[in-house]
Amino acid sequence: MVVGFEKAVSATKSVVTSVKKAPTTLSSDRVINFARGDPTMYESYWRQMGEKCTVVISGHNLMSYFSNGGHFCWFLMPELDRAIRRLHCVVGNAVVDDDRYIVVGNGSTQLFQAVLYALSSSYDPDTEPLSVVAAAPFYSSYPEETEFLRSGLYKWAGDAYSFDKDGAYIEVVTSPNNPDGAIREAVVNRDGGKLIHDLAYYWPQYTPITGKADNDIMLFTFSKATGHAGSRIGWAIVKDIAVATKMVKFMELSSIGVSKESQLRAAKILEVISDDCQNSAPDKEENFFEYGQRLMSDRWEKLREVVKRNGVFSLPKYPQDYCNFIGKYTDPSPAFAWLKSKDGLNCDNLLRELKIVTRGGTNFGVDSNYTRISMLSPDEEFNLLLERLSAIQGTIINGNN
Amino acid sequence: MVVGFEKAVSATKSVVTSVKKAPTTLSSDRVINFARGDPTMYESYWRQMGEKCTVVISGHNLMSYFSNGGHFCWFLMPELDRAIRRLHCVVGNAVVDDDRYIVVGNGSTQLFQAVLYALSSSYDPDTEPLSVVAAAPFYSSYPEETEFLRSGLYKWAGDAYSFDKDGAYIEVVTSPNNPDGAIREAVVNRDGGKLIHDLAYYWPQYTPITGKADNDIMLFTFSKATGHAGSRIGWAIVKDIAVATKMVKFMELSSIGVSKESQLRAAKILEVISDDCQNSAPDKEENFFEYGQRLMSDRWEKLREVVKRNGVFSLPKYPQDYCNFIGKYTDPSPAFAWLKSKDGLNCDNLLRELKIVTRGGTNFGVDSNYTRISMLSPDEEFNLLLERLSAIQGTIINGNN
Repeated sequence: MVVGFEKAVSATKSVVTSVKKAPTTLSSDRVINFARGDPTMYESYWRQMGEKCTVVISGHNLMSYFSNGGHFCWFLMPELDRAIRRLHCVVGNAVVDDDRYIVVGNGSTQLFQAVLYALSSSYDPDTEPLSVVAAAPFYSSYPEETEFLRSGLYKWAGDAYSFDKDGAYIEVVTSPNNPDGAIREAVVNRDGGKLIHDLAYYWPQYTPITGKADNDIMLFTFSKATGHAGSRIGWAIVKDIAVATKMVKFMELSSIGVSKESQLRAAKILEVISDDCQNSAPDKEENFFEYGQRLMSDRWEKLREVVKRNGVFSLPKYPQDYCNFIGKYTDPSPAFAWLKSKDGLNCDNLLRELKIVTRGGTNFGVDSNYTRISMLSPDEEFNLLLERLSAIQGTIINGNN
Repeated sequence: MVVGFEKAVSATKSVVTSVKKAPTTLSSDRVINFARGDPTMYESYWRQMGEKCTVVISGHNLMSYFSNGGHFCWFLMPELDRAIRRLHCVVGNAVVDDDRYIVVGNGSTQLFQAVLYALSSSYDPDTEPLSVVAAAPFYSSYPEETEFLRSGLYKWAGDAYSFDKDGAYIEVVTSPNNPDGAIREAVVNRDGGKLIHDLAYYWPQYTPITGKADNDIMLFTFSKATGHAGSRIGWAIVKDIAVATKMVKFMELSSIGVSKESQLRAAKILEVISDDCQNSAPDKEENFFEYGQRLMSDRWEKLREVVKRNGVFSLPKYPQDYCNFIGKYTDPSPAFAWLKSKDGLNCDNLLRELKIVTRGGTNFGVDSNYTRISMLSPDEEFNLLLERLSAIQGTIINGNN
């Protein structure tokens, strides 16, 4: 769930000259982009899997608009519904009992908007738009996704910590949080509040799975779960059939459903992961989440080492916890590193001097001494990041940027 | 571009008893649904094509959000861009010179909304929402797609024929028109007007191709071009890069792009069609459009015969024209039949008595003595339609429904 692509690129033009660099050890002079959360690092895992996940689609397959005519979510393919429920059971990260309704979307981005519609469309048209809040730092796209059509149904109302309006509201709870990886709960907690739980990162590679999430509306996305961002598949698990039905209505009006090719492929890949996770053979290969967790832990360890050594930045500390899925205590290893400059400097600008593009704190509702770095880049780029961060000597020449 | 699925189903409950039926010759008692434009009739053609259109996608393919980083439409796969341009060149139905920009969407439904955003988002926020109009009878989903989020940017303003407000406006020109198959031009024609040309049905199977369309913003959709509705692929051909860029922004905020699996498959299928159309071998098979044109002509001939015989309804007459693609004069054979009851009766209700579900005229901004029937159903259902329509004796017992 990451957007603002071109913004990150165009912003590279303005740089500052405030960091004294060590004699260059950079293996390349090119700009590297860590502003996006493009999860391409998982590609090598899926390549190793060979043909296990291959889908073959003939010209006459998947032609109808309909996937499941009698179902409330008529465009959801039954095999994807089953694969999603099975994976959540296997991982133990969400309740998917039979009385929970699954709605598929073109990524969780579209589903987020479907939920806003579902929760606000029955309000009296003469009342004010419903306020939408999230605790800062919040995912940088929530404000724009909420505001861009200037809907009369809902409007962005900023940081949940400072929200003090009476009446109905929607709070988005992102846990683990994007950008800072924190495990979160609702903060407003007043009558008339509706909650959207964005659980895009509640998977074993990013955080210990401590229990089955059981919220009213939970959003997940294929892109962060498995790395298949190009498929644009997200899903919501919803308790109230009335809300789920309105979300389906939104999906009809917005795009008449969701690509069947993507749904078919997502179903296949999720089933393969579940099969692998349930494989108890003694010589079994590492499953996808074990692989992801190992890779992410390794990256975090390296990043923490570099950050500690250069002394310019700090990173959040996360408590270790017991992961029911992995079966041992693990450290959280979020999909993004939430970097803070120790001296209150503009973090983005510091890094742009090193030709590292990141997404600055102001995009997330906080100060510019924070920035967000994607941890999901390919190895080569991640290593270049470590190399460049290591090259900062820890001496800030000019503190007024 | 058809929606309102569940509406069509639930509406079957209220029927009238106004038609005297001939002794029943109906082969089945089940309700048949012609309210939707699900283009499943093309399935048998694609089945015959065997593996020519098959796509094979491995687990590690198509993972990134990005398809074409340096391109203004960064999620559009270059192979789809090429395939779209090539097909339009081969068919001769639209100008796709290098200075025209292609934006891909999750169906043309999403692109329609992207255009509304693109044309209205730069207007002063203090001004009234931009009026969106279309000449009645208009596609039944335009009003709801325009209104459902109660946008402050644009609003539905009804029938273009009665639109008399000064200032900026958007007119949607659907040609051939859904529901009535008419070839259309803009009707408001005043200063400050922006036009969206919805050319979903400007393909040889539906209408003679008389020239290359060259409008500012043209929408096409894979579902009506080839029958692949489940893929949710549409495209816009846009003259103004500023408009195209804003549409891309909408697509980012709405769904972070479009399924790559669907794009890959659409590219493959469009290329196969172009290859077949350009095949000049003496023993070559009928190409897709020749097949479609033959099938649709045949259906229209049968329908006209039945309608003429029963005397209850009438159908529009279309002028024959020279089709540059087919290379001879052809009759239009629209994707929908726009049926009118001769005695001003409620057309939907008449047909529901025969267990035929259609979409009534009021959905399209006109009277209930009109209804729309999809011509794209599978053979079995179409034949059942003919059989049931034949069973009306032409004697209306009770005229006051």
